[in-house]
Amino acid sequence: MSNPNLFSKQYLLTAGPTPLPPRVLSIASEPILYHRAPAFVDIYERVLANLPRVFQTSNQVLVFGSSGSGGMESAAANLIVPGDNVIVASCGKFGQRWAQLAEAFGANLHHLEFEWGTPVDPAAIGNKLDEIDGPVKAVFTTFSETSTGVLNDVKAINEIVTAAGSILVVDAVSGLGAANLPQDEWGIDVVVAGSQKALMCPPGLGFASVSPKALEIAAQNPGRRFYFDWEKTAKGQAKGNSPFTPAVSLFMALDVALNMILEEEGLENVFARHAVLAKAARAGIKAIGLERFGPDNPDANVVTAAWLPEEIEGAKVPGRMRDVYGVTIAGGQDHLKGKIARIAHCGYFGGFDIITALTALEMALRDLGFDVTPGSGAGAAEQVFAEHGSVPQPA
Amino acid sequence: MSNPNLFSKQYLLTAGPTPLPPRVLSIASEPILYHRAPAFVDIYERVLANLPRVFQTSNQVLVFGSSGSGGMESAAANLIVPGDNVIVASCGKFGQRWAQLAEAFGANLHHLEFEWGTPVDPAAIGNKLDEIDGPVKAVFTTFSETSTGVLNDVKAINEIVTAAGSILVVDAVSGLGAANLPQDEWGIDVVVAGSQKALMCPPGLGFASVSPKALEIAAQNPGRRFYFDWEKTAKGQAKGNSPFTPAVSLFMALDVALNMILEEEGLENVFARHAVLAKAARAGIKAIGLERFGPDNPDANVVTAAWLPEEIEGAKVPGRMRDVYGVTIAGGQDHLKGKIARIAHCGYFGGFDIITALTALEMALRDLGFDVTPGSGAGAAEQVFAEHGSVPQPA
Repeated sequence: MSNPNLFSKQYLLTAGPTPLPPRVLSIASEPILYHRAPAFVDIYERVLANLPRVFQTSNQVLVFGSSGSGGMESAAANLIVPGDNVIVASCGKFGQRWAQLAEAFGANLHHLEFEWGTPVDPAAIGNKLDEIDGPVKAVFTTFSETSTGVLNDVKAINEIVTAAGSILVVDAVSGLGAANLPQDEWGIDVVVAGSQKALMCPPGLGFASVSPKALEIAAQNPGRRFYFDWEKTAKGQAKGNSPFTPAVSLFMALDVALNMILEEEGLENVFARHAVLAKAARAGIKAIGLERFGPDNPDANVVTAAWLPEEIEGAKVPGRMRDVYGVTIAGGQDHLKGKIARIAHCGYFGGFDIITALTALEMALRDLGFDVTPGSGAGAAEQVFAEHGSVPQPA
Repeated sequence: MSNPNLFSKQYLLTAGPTPLPPRVLSIASEPILYHRAPAFVDIYERVLANLPRVFQTSNQVLVFGSSGSGGMESAAANLIVPGDNVIVASCGKFGQRWAQLAEAFGANLHHLEFEWGTPVDPAAIGNKLDEIDGPVKAVFTTFSETSTGVLNDVKAINEIVTAAGSILVVDAVSGLGAANLPQDEWGIDVVVAGSQKALMCPPGLGFASVSPKALEIAAQNPGRRFYFDWEKTAKGQAKGNSPFTPAVSLFMALDVALNMILEEEGLENVFARHAVLAKAARAGIKAIGLERFGPDNPDANVVTAAWLPEEIEGAKVPGRMRDVYGVTIAGGQDHLKGKIARIAHCGYFGGFDIITALTALEMALRDLGFDVTPGSGAGAAEQVFAEHGSVPQPA
């Protein structure tokens, strides 16, 4: 594998693809299995039995061979009849994808765009629902907006949406398994996700947890989809029989990862670990002397973003961290390119990964002329861990 | 990994997922790469540069995170406007998928169904093209029909289709890289494929090689698709930028596999190896005393099917081969379940894999009461290899 970097040991600390546990990596080098043979069917059925526990639902979780966006597309393709009123409430790049999907599938789109770095305002959705003449088929929004680190209050949004007789579709690609999202307790009809973030797997599997009500709405709108059809997928899965050749090696990886999350560490402990890591990231950012980008939400446990100092060339920060120090984090996307840095804590992350990210960020900032005392970020994170009583580590 | 079989060493000899080279397996256990970082972009661009060589085309080959059926869906979604006349010419289970896709996308479907085990008759397509009043948007057919082993004469079909002013879409999921399919030389507008057959990779990537003419037709029909949109994918790929998070680990695997196919063994040698393996499989089937299922086509290099003897319980053959002898092959699908056995030679197969499949088949048949002299299948295959001058082995 080509390695264009100076340092051969690489630290991948992005919010997706996220770093993978060695056990997840090593299962991928086991011989491939025939998808109709018992050895694979066992794995397939165990994964399908375990996935709903992560979604905290009694729904069947539908699995597609796709990126997380395929899970999103399944929602648009199964729910939207051309001309339907739909509301998209976005506050970043991934929220905008809902708007693109809604338009591609012919919706009468009402797009509530909130500034990047701010959360979606549930009351604004309520106002829009009141304002629209006629029924609103569905409201689409984002749980954790990876492009900014903002976590939306989907519980409050769902109360407003369901009270108005519509259904909520939540993109939880980056939040599921990192921040608490009890789908059934909150009563959310559709939650979509992907394999490559907090679920600690390679990219290539998309998920949709669909309530019986949403399945019923989809059934009244047949056609214009095949690969992402919910009903076909649900029927096949119920028989242990994927309608298309499943991504066998990714199921093998997910089986290992789900066992780590559910049995070895426990979902509650996973959420608690993410919360401490996020707290350490926030403390480190502040100690380095950077301004946080986005609200100070203690539940935003997926990504922590910081404004880069105006006096340095911000666009150079992520590249310098990667090429000089071997630490890969993400910068800003679109109009935030060069403006922010994003510290991820999503999936297989432990305390020392946050120390590494903060320290490499500090080094790159110092190289570019920003004045910060070495060890500021690490010291603040260390202090958070000390207060917590231990350095968080995944199973 | 659970193993329900008596023998711990397993021989996976199916036509998809196919057995994977150790080098392809081992790259999957390398740490995951961030899809926007140079280390991955290098791999991504190399894969995109090499794929057209396997399709024998100057088209950009579009890659989707999906099964091979996702590549097929991309063709239906991009080409079909509701109400369009389309012809599907099918002769097995995968050909029928085209009909399901055409109906899902609202086509006015003209379905020419040929009996399973027979090839598509090009002249019948010509007659249907003449018969249909008004333009026919596209004709959809299958190159190698995995469910029966039949290889269709897509060169002849394409001449008829293009002469009538329509375009041909070929599902080459199971044939590409095993049997010769020179897309540009034959002038085929759309060829779709998947990663998990002759390309020696895990399932999870779908491909579409689309001519400029087909891209133009798709561009006149925007909307009603997003994830599988050809134009969006083409534009992203041209900038080295996948529109959705790519299945990073599968690209890493495909990079290794394409290098083996194109540089180490050479595409012509790969085809020649498959031809000798298929010849050995045909000879072995005959020597065991089974009747071949399907025509005796020397170009059908992907799967060789045989009728199972009527006097034994055919449905028990594949299970017995797998559970008693640790050799996994596929039986028949749908109405051919229990009627046929399919010997695959598609991808990372060498001569001894054919010997193993034939011998395990012989053992299972003898166990179930069929009278055959031990070594009949292996002997006939060995004789083919001797005539060929060597036992074929992949790189």
